[in-house]
Amino acid sequence: MDRPDRVGRQQILKVHTRKVVLAADVKLEDVAALTPGFTGADLANLVNEAALVATRGGADRIGMNDFNVAIERIVAGLEKKNRLRNPREREIVAHHEMGHAFVAAALPGSDAVHKISIIPRGIGALGYTIQRPTEDRYLMTREELENKMAVLLGGRAAEHLVFGHLSTGAADDLAKVTDIARSMVTRFGMGAALGPVTYESEPTTFLGQAYGSRRLYAEETAREIDVAVRGIVEAQFHRAQAILVTNRALLADAAGLLLANETLSGVQLDDVLRRVGKEVGPRLAAAATA
Amino acid sequence: MDRPDRVGRQQILKVHTRKVVLAADVKLEDVAALTPGFTGADLANLVNEAALVATRGGADRIGMNDFNVAIERIVAGLEKKNRLRNPREREIVAHHEMGHAFVAAALPGSDAVHKISIIPRGIGALGYTIQRPTEDRYLMTREELENKMAVLLGGRAAEHLVFGHLSTGAADDLAKVTDIARSMVTRFGMGAALGPVTYESEPTTFLGQAYGSRRLYAEETAREIDVAVRGIVEAQFHRAQAILVTNRALLADAAGLLLANETLSGVQLDDVLRRVGKEVGPRLAAAATA
Amino acid sequence: MDRPDRVGRQQILKVHTRKVVLAADVKLEDVAALTPGFTGADLANLVNEAALVATRGGADRIGMNDFNVAIERIVAGLEKKNRLRNPREREIVAHHEMGHAFVAAALPGSDAVHKISIIPRGIGALGYTIQRPTEDRYLMTREELENKMAVLLGGRAAEHLVFGHLSTGAADDLAKVTDIARSMVTRFGMGAALGPVTYESEPTTFLGQAYGSRRLYAEETAREIDVAVRGIVEAQFHRAQAILVTNRALLADAAGLLLANETLSGVQLDDVLRRVGKEVGPRLAAAATA
Amino acid sequence: MDRPDRVGRQQILKVHTRKVVLAADVKLEDVAALTPGFTGADLANLVNEAALVATRGGADRIGMNDFNVAIERIVAGLEKKNRLRNPREREIVAHHEMGHAFVAAALPGSDAVHKISIIPRGIGALGYTIQRPTEDRYLMTREELENKMAVLLGGRAAEHLVFGHLSTGAADDLAKVTDIARSMVTRFGMGAALGPVTYESEPTTFLGQAYGSRRLYAEETAREIDVAVRGIVEAQFHRAQAILVTNRALLADAAGLLLANETLSGVQLDDVLRRVGKEVGPRLAAAATA
Amino acid sequence: MDRPDRVGRQQILKVHTRKVVLAADVKLEDVAALTPGFTGADLANLVNEAALVATRGGADRIGMNDFNVAIERIVAGLEKKNRLRNPREREIVAHHEMGHAFVAAALPGSDAVHKISIIPRGIGALGYTIQRPTEDRYLMTREELENKMAVLLGGRAAEHLVFGHLSTGAADDLAKVTDIARSMVTRFGMGAALGPVTYESEPTTFLGQAYGSRRLYAEETAREIDVAVRGIVEAQFHRAQAILVTNRALLADAAGLLLANETLSGVQLDDVLRRVGKEVGPRLAAAATA
Amino acid sequence: MDRPDRVGRQQILKVHTRKVVLAADVKLEDVAALTPGFTGADLANLVNEAALVATRGGADRIGMNDFNVAIERIVAGLEKKNRLRNPREREIVAHHEMGHAFVAAALPGSDAVHKISIIPRGIGALGYTIQRPTEDRYLMTREELENKMAVLLGGRAAEHLVFGHLSTGAADDLAKVTDIARSMVTRFGMGAALGPVTYESEPTTFLGQAYGSRRLYAEETAREIDVAVRGIVEAQFHRAQAILVTNRALLADAAGLLLANETLSGVQLDDVLRRVGKEVGPRLAAAATA
Repeated sequence: MDRPDRVGRQQILKVHTRKVVLAADVKLEDVAALTPGFTGADLANLVNEAALVATRGGADRIGMNDFNVAIERIVAGLEKKNRLRNPREREIVAHHEMGHAFVAAALPGSDAVHKISIIPRGIGALGYTIQRPTEDRYLMTREELENKMAVLLGGRAAEHLVFGHLSTGAADDLAKVTDIARSMVTRFGMGAALGPVTYESEPTTFLGQAYGSRRLYAEETAREIDVAVRGIVEAQFHRAQAILVTNRALLADAAGLLLANETLSGVQLDDVLRRVGKEVGPRLAAAATA
Repeated sequence: MDRPDRVGRQQILKVHTRKVVLAADVKLEDVAALTPGFTGADLANLVNEAALVATRGGADRIGMNDFNVAIERIVAGLEKKNRLRNPREREIVAHHEMGHAFVAAALPGSDAVHKISIIPRGIGALGYTIQRPTEDRYLMTREELENKMAVLLGGRAAEHLVFGHLSTGAADDLAKVTDIARSMVTRFGMGAALGPVTYESEPTTFLGQAYGSRRLYAEETAREIDVAVRGIVEAQFHRAQAILVTNRALLADAAGLLLANETLSGVQLDDVLRRVGKEVGPRLAAAATA
Repeated sequence: MDRPDRVGRQQILKVHTRKVVLAADVKLEDVAALTPGFTGADLANLVNEAALVATRGGADRIGMNDFNVAIERIVAGLEKKNRLRNPREREIVAHHEMGHAFVAAALPGSDAVHKISIIPRGIGALGYTIQRPTEDRYLMTREELENKMAVLLGGRAAEHLVFGHLSTGAADDLAKVTDIARSMVTRFGMGAALGPVTYESEPTTFLGQAYGSRRLYAEETAREIDVAVRGIVEAQFHRAQAILVTNRALLADAAGLLLANETLSGVQLDDVLRRVGKEVGPRLAAAATA
Repeated sequence: MDRPDRVGRQQILKVHTRKVVLAADVKLEDVAALTPGFTGADLANLVNEAALVATRGGADRIGMNDFNVAIERIVAGLEKKNRLRNPREREIVAHHEMGHAFVAAALPGSDAVHKISIIPRGIGALGYTIQRPTEDRYLMTREELENKMAVLLGGRAAEHLVFGHLSTGAADDLAKVTDIARSMVTRFGMGAALGPVTYESEPTTFLGQAYGSRRLYAEETAREIDVAVRGIVEAQFHRAQAILVTNRALLADAAGLLLANETLSGVQLDDVLRRVGKEVGPRLAAAATA
Repeated sequence: MDRPDRVGRQQILKVHTRKVVLAADVKLEDVAALTPGFTGADLANLVNEAALVATRGGADRIGMNDFNVAIERIVAGLEKKNRLRNPREREIVAHHEMGHAFVAAALPGSDAVHKISIIPRGIGALGYTIQRPTEDRYLMTREELENKMAVLLGGRAAEHLVFGHLSTGAADDLAKVTDIARSMVTRFGMGAALGPVTYESEPTTFLGQAYGSRRLYAEETAREIDVAVRGIVEAQFHRAQAILVTNRALLADAAGLLLANETLSGVQLDDVLRRVGKEVGPRLAAAATA
Repeated sequence: MDRPDRVGRQQILKVHTRKVVLAADVKLEDVAALTPGFTGADLANLVNEAALVATRGGADRIGMNDFNVAIERIVAGLEKKNRLRNPREREIVAHHEMGHAFVAAALPGSDAVHKISIIPRGIGALGYTIQRPTEDRYLMTREELENKMAVLLGGRAAEHLVFGHLSTGAADDLAKVTDIARSMVTRFGMGAALGPVTYESEPTTFLGQAYGSRRLYAEETAREIDVAVRGIVEAQFHRAQAILVTNRALLADAAGLLLANETLSGVQLDDVLRRVGKEVGPRLAAAATA
């Protein structure tokens, strides 16, 4: 399921075109640029297909046009197989992933982002943003959990800010955020209204589903939990939004760069994220004087 | 379960009558018109039955009357087997299916309808409307989900507009619409009052039924979800209604054409749907100025 | 479990008395009239028993008195086996079943009743009323579902009108009516207050019981559903009552005829039901002007 | 578990004393009176034991005193085995069972009581009252169900009236009464406030317990059902009380007679129950004028 | 698990010391007094251990000091095995058990206490109080059930009165009391507000747990049941308290006697309980005049 | 999973360096100080690694620098394996564990702490504090249960006091505290508002989860339980906080000592805890005068 980026595709093409004769107008860099979403196998197939096209046309070498024809055919096949994404979706995903990265960059205590990509990994995935935790955690403070939630909500916040829409692309992020917020309230005693009391145990799974944690608490308590969870999540969404509003122009540039490169890491990524303004909010101001 | 339309039946009759002698008064076109709902096997059976009727009558060729008698017998048998539909139902189904198609045609972002039929496929089905998505979706925005719901509700809206009734024919559409609306509220964070919080996980099935998603949220939250779901669905039903009211005369013509042909696709369908007025509502007006 | 009616019993008696000698005073028509509820086997047994009685009395042929003695013995045995019904119950059942038939006859869109009987079929059954649907249905409108409910409630309405009581005899009818009303509200979007939303899926059975449809909706929504269901059912009960009040005298006659004949069909039934006044209510008036 | 009454014990004693020599002072009638609760085996054992006592005392025949000594020993053993009931309990049970019988006798439509006993049958049972239904029922009216409940509550009403207490002895009666009242409200449409709607299906059992009838109705509806059930049961309890208050003196006599005889049936029972005043309440007055 | 009391230990010691030589200063009575909680096996072990100690010290007979050293060693071992109870706990248990006995003695209708002990029987048990029912019961009146509850609550009441604390020692008593009170309300029709209606059936167990009694009643009814149960239990706790307050001085003496003897029965116990003042409350006053 | 402390590591190093030649600058005490979290196997590995480093550098003995290089390499590997904790976490854990110990020391009736460590035992654990109960308990009073809860909450209270944060590190403590408080209210009759009534039985486990204790009580009762549990827990948290505030300076010193030594027991621990001020609150004042 792992697909190469543009540079990767150019290198793969170089390998597969070693034994064929290319016309002078063929630039593998351009072919790579035209084949986002192609796997290594797809690229090998492309070279064969282009050779066939050229042969049928009576040519003794593969021209750029042969590649164009072959690409068109393969894309049509791939589209049916559901593997390529339309440009609009790619644009949304680029902003979504960059949203995660920007919020992480703006929060001093947050783990650094070291790779970001719009090439999907796995079925149903959009893209991915990888944070390398500087160290493994035995315990996490409320502030660290809140930062983690803000980063997770950065994708949705970016989509909403740039496109004015809400999409299904944030469903997994919301599920993770809700799990964290719910644990804060029901297991870590971090919901002010609910006291240092445990309301739910860690679930035990049976048939692939949580079975264990029976709900003993009252309806009114359940509502207090819901209200507390919602309050925590909304506060973090607003933090994420505030960060992205502040860095809106930079976000557009960064998303453009990601769209062009599909994957960013190392120096290029550092260059972008270094310029993200750090969050200055009441919490941090307070923390600074503490 | 796939049944041919009138043209298809005529072609099938042509094949099955090759080895029999037909009287001069027999027009296969008319026989085809008299046998809606017949399968290929039913038509083969019809030719045999008509030949028997003719033979018993001492004739050396099959006349139109022999076909009429044979049709009558077979229809009685089929009626018992529950496979033919009465004219009133056919009329309702024609409007129902055309309702889906009209709403799809009126919504710019909606997938194009490329085939529509009142010939049922599968047990309990009414007819069908096939939309070809122009591309597969990795993510869907709230607007796209709303359009999808409006199209699904177009069938019920058409029945209600034209016949002034509500029928059981929309049950499947309502179930799909409710699933979408519920997911919007509980999984995609699109219910304004409920925040960017997940309330239900994707269900896991066991014994053919969803088992997994235990309800943890409070009663008051459950009511908020119900109210949000209902509000979303009703808004889309009103959109579908508004579109059909605007295109009422055209809807009547189109349903008549569908009744006559049983199945519409290609040029005929495009001719009809091209004339459906695009939706111009507050949402679209706002989108245009955004 | 299928028991013959009076005419059927007379014919069966004719068969079983072929090889015995009957006295001049024996009229098989009278014997048939005295043996409601007897099966074919019971009647064969009766002839044997009467022959034994006659033999013991020194007679060389079976007299009417011998039949009376034999009937008395067998009835005592059958009463113990719980197979005969007392006269009061027969009277109630006759009105109950005729109630169904009258409401069906009064509703123009309703399926025609073509047989009605007070001879129970199956354990715990009272009698039966058979409606032949003029055609099978792919979809049903709200009006058609309402008619179906009114017919089902006709039995209870008749009992209440004539005897001033409520009885357990309507339990099955109520269960069917409730199922229809509940589906109207929760699956067909026909409950005005609840919108075009699905609240329950078709149940999947496990261990002979519905397991699937988990209740996700809120308590307040559950109450809305209950109120809607109750409202729908009560409205149809009042329709059924109004029809029977209008036709009260005819109902008494018809029930008497049914009691005398045990089963009515064909011309006799048509004669009765033809005279039932059609419902003229606000709905129908409105429909007439639509 | 079936134990003989006094007359039965006397007859059994007569059999077992055939082969022994009795002293002149022994009256088997008295021995029978002293051995309530003895089974046939206990009585056989008693004769042997008394013979042993006499032999040890050097006597050549069994005197009344030998029987007294033997009875004492056996009773002590039986007491340990938990099979005899103390006099207070016997008195309570006599009034409890007679309470059932009196209410049945006072209600014209009720099945006749033809046997009543304070000898327990089965573990945990008190005594029993047997009503022979004059005929089996296919359907029961509300009035008949109400009468049945009143009879069931007659035991508790008698205990309360005579001893001023409530006891655990009525638990089974209450369970039966509640089942009837609940079915009236949830299955037979007899709860005025709840309409002709089914709220619960007949339960299906699994692992010896009802599993099937899931509760779909709302909390508020559940409360309506509870209130309706309670109202029905309390009304019948008051009917039972009123009947017993009216017949209080006769109840005391009848209970005394039952205590003395342990079991009543036939003429003795008819003599008592014939004198019970028929219920004259608003319902019956109304029924009389109907 | 059954451990001997002081007298029993002395007798056991006598047996085990038959074959050893004891010094003149050894009094088995004293050794018994020093070894509460020792089983027969522990005492056999003690004699061996003391012999070893004496031998190592070069003595030819076992002195009292040898016993002291051996006791110390064994107690240390037993302490680890969790079998001995500290003096504070013994004091609490003595008052707890005597509390049960005093309330039983004060209630005329209550079963007589014939043995009371602070030697635990079974894991987790405190001590025990045995009431011999004067006769087995087929039915129990509300008053008898209330007396039973008061006796069960006597332990907690004594702890609270004497030590001013609540402890976990009453958990089993509370569970039993709650079961009785709940059955009174839900199965015996003894909760005034809830009427002569059954709310719960006797539970059926599955996997060692009650599974059967599904809750059908409404939330408001559940609250009525809770309030009724709580009211009944609290009333009986107050009765128990009142009895113990009245007999406070005697309770202290009796607990001291029990601590010294560990187990009381026969004359000693009768001497104590005979002096407990009978309850004179409104109920009894009323009962006396009834 | 058991890891040695600094002293332990020094001894292990001494063993493993027997067969190698160490340079004069190597002090095993320093090496031990640099290797917190190393297991015995890690230390053996360290000596080998340092020897390799020295050999590659052409040296004939292992210098301190070789150890430094080797430690760096191994730490990098261990960090990946998630076994070492960062300094910030170690500091938090030291205060958390010392918080437990201080509260225990301040409560006269509490079990003595005899060992405290920041070396984790088992996956996910932080550190540990071991209290040796002076004796096993058959019963516990409310006061003893409250003390136990206060000690458990001491960790969270210390974190909050010193770092101003709440962390996930207290999750297990909260679960234990909630279990105790819930049992007090639902099983031991210690919740004033809920009376001496049992609301939940001890759970039976099935599939590793509690299955048994079905909730019978009403919603309003459930809320009373929640409020009572929360009140009990919060009161104990405040007690723990008050104790730590009073001893804040000492807590800082003690945590520092624990950080330096990783594990404290014996004299060192006694020296610290002896100086903790005893709790003087309304409860104790009252108890003193009782």
